[in-house]
Amino acid sequence: MKWYFDDFVYGSIDGAVTTFAIVAGVVGASLSPGIILILGFANLFADGFSMATANYQASKARNEFVQMKRRQEEWEIDNLAEQERNEIREIYREKGFKDELLEDVVRIITSRRKVWIDTMMKEELGLIEDERNPFDSSVSTFVGFNIIGLIPLIPFMIFMMIGIDPNSEAFTYSTVSVLAAFFLVGMIKGKIVKKSMMRSGIITLIIGGIAASVAYMVGHGLNFLVS
Amino acid sequence: MKWYFDDFVYGSIDGAVTTFAIVAGVVGASLSPGIILILGFANLFADGFSMATANYQASKARNEFVQMKRRQEEWEIDNLAEQERNEIREIYREKGFKDELLEDVVRIITSRRKVWIDTMMKEELGLIEDERNPFDSSVSTFVGFNIIGLIPLIPFMIFMMIGIDPNSEAFTYSTVSVLAAFFLVGMIKGKIVKKSMMRSGIITLIIGGIAASVAYMVGHGLNFLVS
Repeated sequence: MKWYFDDFVYGSIDGAVTTFAIVAGVVGASLSPGIILILGFANLFADGFSMATANYQASKARNEFVQMKRRQEEWEIDNLAEQERNEIREIYREKGFKDELLEDVVRIITSRRKVWIDTMMKEELGLIEDERNPFDSSVSTFVGFNIIGLIPLIPFMIFMMIGIDPNSEAFTYSTVSVLAAFFLVGMIKGKIVKKSMMRSGIITLIIGGIAASVAYMVGHGLNFLVS
Repeated sequence: MKWYFDDFVYGSIDGAVTTFAIVAGVVGASLSPGIILILGFANLFADGFSMATANYQASKARNEFVQMKRRQEEWEIDNLAEQERNEIREIYREKGFKDELLEDVVRIITSRRKVWIDTMMKEELGLIEDERNPFDSSVSTFVGFNIIGLIPLIPFMIFMMIGIDPNSEAFTYSTVSVLAAFFLVGMIKGKIVKKSMMRSGIITLIIGGIAASVAYMVGHGLNFLVS
């Protein structure tokens, strides 16, 4: 399969934010740390699955939409040739062609079915086919979501495995490692879109940090509900 | 502002899944129902914010990428005119033009700067500008996430407000209403992409249902962590 790093990054930011939101919410509300692992894993699998499926459906829907439009253009060319020829004429008139040259261009474009349809797709409908494989795209999202989304849980897992009740120290480790993950993923993202990696890392860090703080404050503000 | 219903739908499915995953995880692990509201709201605000920001950044990055490519083409046309003229010639040769007619087409296309650049963008790079406003797009996502994501929490809020401890009945109401929401949102989605609304409603219902079941099972399987 082919890896799509932008989908990986998209999934991983969401995974880290939602898992850490649970960590911060539980700690903010002073709940039992075991709840972090229960709801953290529930979220990793459930939300990761849902996000990957949403991604799959969106890519597939876009591909199907483009194919549907292509079939529609094919039908129009077969059944309403004169109208479609006029549309090509208008498109090229707008580009600055006229008179005999315009007619020559229309003749050449409409003499090859594929060129004709491609021109209608791009110029009339503004659609370009995307060869992205929906399945690979959604797997990339899911893996990013689960690998990076696991990071905030690791300190709590280690503490519980070695038999220590996770305390504020585990929360500190979790916070530091998720902030490092935000920064790193942001840098990768900056590299993909060919912008400043440092700037992109800091922006992702700030956004993730705000989301996590919101979760902590909501947890803290609502902890009377279980007291 | 302009509403983007596809972003609204995308946000709302994710909002319903993640909030209900928390509900199902808490109930599966037999935890205090107050935790549902604490982590449900923490998730609504934190994940809703993060998702909307991710959407904003992705739209903005795409717009910036297209603009960067356009400026690059502009520079090439100004500085490497002959090379760019050859590229236009190749593009139209592939469409079936040749000899004198080909030269005429190249002359007309390259005589107007905007037409020249637009042709390079579409034909060479396969890029079409998207006028979608990144801010409106992310607000649509956020509102969908929060409105539909709130649904699984409503029965628990009502039970607590009228002073009854939320029990399995609240969970039943929550499940029924979130499944109804999945179905409804799926139908809207089907309408947007012009496919069978019934089919799309059922598919969304199944996917949301699987995600929710996974959350319930993880919660149930890990409840020894707090016992």
